[in-house]
Amino acid sequence: MLTVMANRKIMAFGLQALSSEERKKILLDIADALEANENLITAENETDVAAAQEAGYEKSLISRLALKSGKILSLAKSIRVLANMEDPIGCVLKETQLADGLVLEKTSSPLGVLLIVFESRPDALVQIASLAIRSGNGLLLKGGKEAKRSNAILHKVITEAIPDTVGGKVIGLVTSRDEIPGLLKLDDVIDLVIPRGSNKLVSQIKSSTKIPVLGHADGICHVYVDKSANLEMAKRIVLDAKVDYPAACNAMETLLVHKDLVQNGALNELIVDLRIQGVSLYGGPRASALLNIPQARSFHHEYNSMECTVEIVDDVAAAVDHIHQHGRHVILPWQRRLSTYLQGHELPFIFPLCSAHTDCIVTEDRETAEVFLHQVDSAAVFHNASTRFCDGARFGLGAEVGISTSRIHARGPVGVEGLLTTRWILKGSGQVVDGDKGVIYTHRDISVDSLKKMYQKNPKMQKEKEMAEAAAD
Amino acid sequence: MLTVMANRKIMAFGLQALSSEERKKILLDIADALEANENLITAENETDVAAAQEAGYEKSLISRLALKSGKILSLAKSIRVLANMEDPIGCVLKETQLADGLVLEKTSSPLGVLLIVFESRPDALVQIASLAIRSGNGLLLKGGKEAKRSNAILHKVITEAIPDTVGGKVIGLVTSRDEIPGLLKLDDVIDLVIPRGSNKLVSQIKSSTKIPVLGHADGICHVYVDKSANLEMAKRIVLDAKVDYPAACNAMETLLVHKDLVQNGALNELIVDLRIQGVSLYGGPRASALLNIPQARSFHHEYNSMECTVEIVDDVAAAVDHIHQHGRHVILPWQRRLSTYLQGHELPFIFPLCSAHTDCIVTEDRETAEVFLHQVDSAAVFHNASTRFCDGARFGLGAEVGISTSRIHARGPVGVEGLLTTRWILKGSGQVVDGDKGVIYTHRDISVDSLKKMYQKNPKMQKEKEMAEAAAD
Repeated sequence: MLTVMANRKIMAFGLQALSSEERKKILLDIADALEANENLITAENETDVAAAQEAGYEKSLISRLALKSGKILSLAKSIRVLANMEDPIGCVLKETQLADGLVLEKTSSPLGVLLIVFESRPDALVQIASLAIRSGNGLLLKGGKEAKRSNAILHKVITEAIPDTVGGKVIGLVTSRDEIPGLLKLDDVIDLVIPRGSNKLVSQIKSSTKIPVLGHADGICHVYVDKSANLEMAKRIVLDAKVDYPAACNAMETLLVHKDLVQNGALNELIVDLRIQGVSLYGGPRASALLNIPQARSFHHEYNSMECTVEIVDDVAAAVDHIHQHGRHVILPWQRRLSTYLQGHELPFIFPLCSAHTDCIVTEDRETAEVFLHQVDSAAVFHNASTRFCDGARFGLGAEVGISTSRIHARGPVGVEGLLTTRWILKGSGQVVDGDKGVIYTHRDISVDSLKKMYQKNPKMQKEKEMAEAAAD
Repeated sequence: MLTVMANRKIMAFGLQALSSEERKKILLDIADALEANENLITAENETDVAAAQEAGYEKSLISRLALKSGKILSLAKSIRVLANMEDPIGCVLKETQLADGLVLEKTSSPLGVLLIVFESRPDALVQIASLAIRSGNGLLLKGGKEAKRSNAILHKVITEAIPDTVGGKVIGLVTSRDEIPGLLKLDDVIDLVIPRGSNKLVSQIKSSTKIPVLGHADGICHVYVDKSANLEMAKRIVLDAKVDYPAACNAMETLLVHKDLVQNGALNELIVDLRIQGVSLYGGPRASALLNIPQARSFHHEYNSMECTVEIVDDVAAAVDHIHQHGRHVILPWQRRLSTYLQGHELPFIFPLCSAHTDCIVTEDRETAEVFLHQVDSAAVFHNASTRFCDGARFGLGAEVGISTSRIHARGPVGVEGLLTTRWILKGSGQVVDGDKGVIYTHRDISVDSLKKMYQKNPKMQKEKEMAEAAAD
């Protein structure tokens, strides 16, 4: 209990109070320590793998559990990339002159304490711990019991590389499953929970905590092929969206096709490649009759495999409707709750019916594309590009914390900024409010946004910018 | 129930699908309608006020309830300001070229459905409804029963000004208190709860819902006067922070004074003005003995009145420690929970002990100021400026949604951006992922941030910018 009740100053500000260079050095030391301890880590991991095989775990779990040859080196490499990235803490996001000599800065700062619950993959521990150090957050890690030894040795190597002045205890490892329900109740202590694992894990955590959860329980991604689509492009996108990695959350689960593509044979062309690749097709009411394929169990089903649903829709508006109505696994529970509470009341309501993960339109018609991009209320909405692009690395976010279908804090693929909050820093010279007679407010935006506006108003500067951009290439 | 189960398309996208100009027109129509119905609104409000007086409600409540002369006109005026502000929806916050012909935009979009619970003040209904319209959000309003008639007429006037094509039901008014517990359970339906009222209301709501709550239950704001402070400035700031509006959440509750200011008489000078203004002083262990004032009941106490706590600290580090340890009303409940769950485990922990609202240092020493600004982990941290500046209007945010002490989504004074989320829009030309061999990633930042970097690297452009800024003044 003494450790638990450790001084807040040491714990909370151990990492936060360090300079960017010091945090960088810790990360580089961890990378070195991982490489130096490669044999030890591999040995512990092999023991875990052997135990899992003996216990008869699924092949896919064992595959995720095993640290493949070269994995430690590639983890060390990615930590060095993180070490060398721009410091995400203390960035001035907005700068406003409130009054003469009174300047307000909105700056980025660590979120506080993160709880990460992950399954199988011991490499997740390393990735997340290094992200937490880079972003100055305290961290509690809860791994799967099948990776117990791997996690223990990785945790030991990492925390031993953290200098005593900071204290390795900024990163804690929770080993018993029994502690999770208790930890999930600590909404005053833990600022964010990030589950990394199955939909089931995410759903369970979401339903049992008041702490904000960064993640997605499901991903019912749609591709809508419009009548004006370039058919070759559509075939390429549909195929990639389904077969590039069918188990991914950003894989296509439902293909929506404009009704005009039925007559001219385009629909058949669209699905022939899917069939060749071995994708099993299920139809909505219209498509199943037309294509003579089995009816889909539900439009709310996430296959996560070489299967998908096909349906015919009348136009882009019908496609948008379908996406908003059928993106979600299960809609009944909360509909039931809603009707119980609002029975008899004249209350309006908006139904968040969709998983609202990633949805795509394939069309050559710019106006139709705009309708789709404007109206589909998902975390990611694409025009003429595969849903598989919805990913932190592909989005260029650096390290990916996860993909969020939550609407607050962070949405879609989340990089390190999902682990940050903001602080307002006001620098004055003795100003007081005094019933708002104390200063003359100017509210002048002196941050980078103001540059943009200046450019828009000043064609000469616009040209300068283009020249500089060209020179930068 | 038919209304409740209304088509999602109509409800959710009624406002969202409108153009900025259309939303603007609705707001202007509402402003006109409020003015046109001023007499009717005033009459209903007077009935509420009379009933509240008869029922023996507190004077302060009745004062908040009454729509003073000219209030309707000033509300209409502020709606017109909101109508004319830049559209907050659809702003491109970040723009990245992922690959040739593949451009990613991070854009702002409505959060979804808001539940606002407010007490007494019927003007809050008008402000919040107009903010919701401007930001394209569905809205459920729950007002106090003492303002029943005022809220009903305001709601009627506002929703009747919304065209049938959108549907006035995007703004719902909940009249019965019994419905609140039910609504607070609908975490799948409601995206954000904003309580506007007493600390008690906020605390109750926070403890009884999984829906994110935007607000602050308490505000224990500190002013720390360093040994190197300009004494005249310190006196001005301390006085303003306490007496400008003692009931505000950003008023000073605790004055921390460097020990060196005891000997030279500066401490006495600091408190003499407070005493003259009628502020009752309570001391921490050191100050109460020294100044011969009653001991403060607790450092965690928010007076919200002409009272404050004074304590002596050794230096800036001790001031930071004090702020982190004593910012919060009640620390025991979660400490107890924490120790129950973690008993016997070697878990590190960070204690969020502070309300972390607004804290200020007064010092002429730049280095000391930097230590304070860097280390105090509050929503707002000030140097040489009154804590009373922590406010949406004073920060230049336009309309204020509230002040948040939450660490996720929005922190400190929150403007309309607190009612927004983001969507990722990807515009391609047929790109596929294909095991990441499909495109050559460029990840080139083509948003305004890149301008800043160009500037930093290019002194000539920096000069251009300064000239343009000077010209803009």
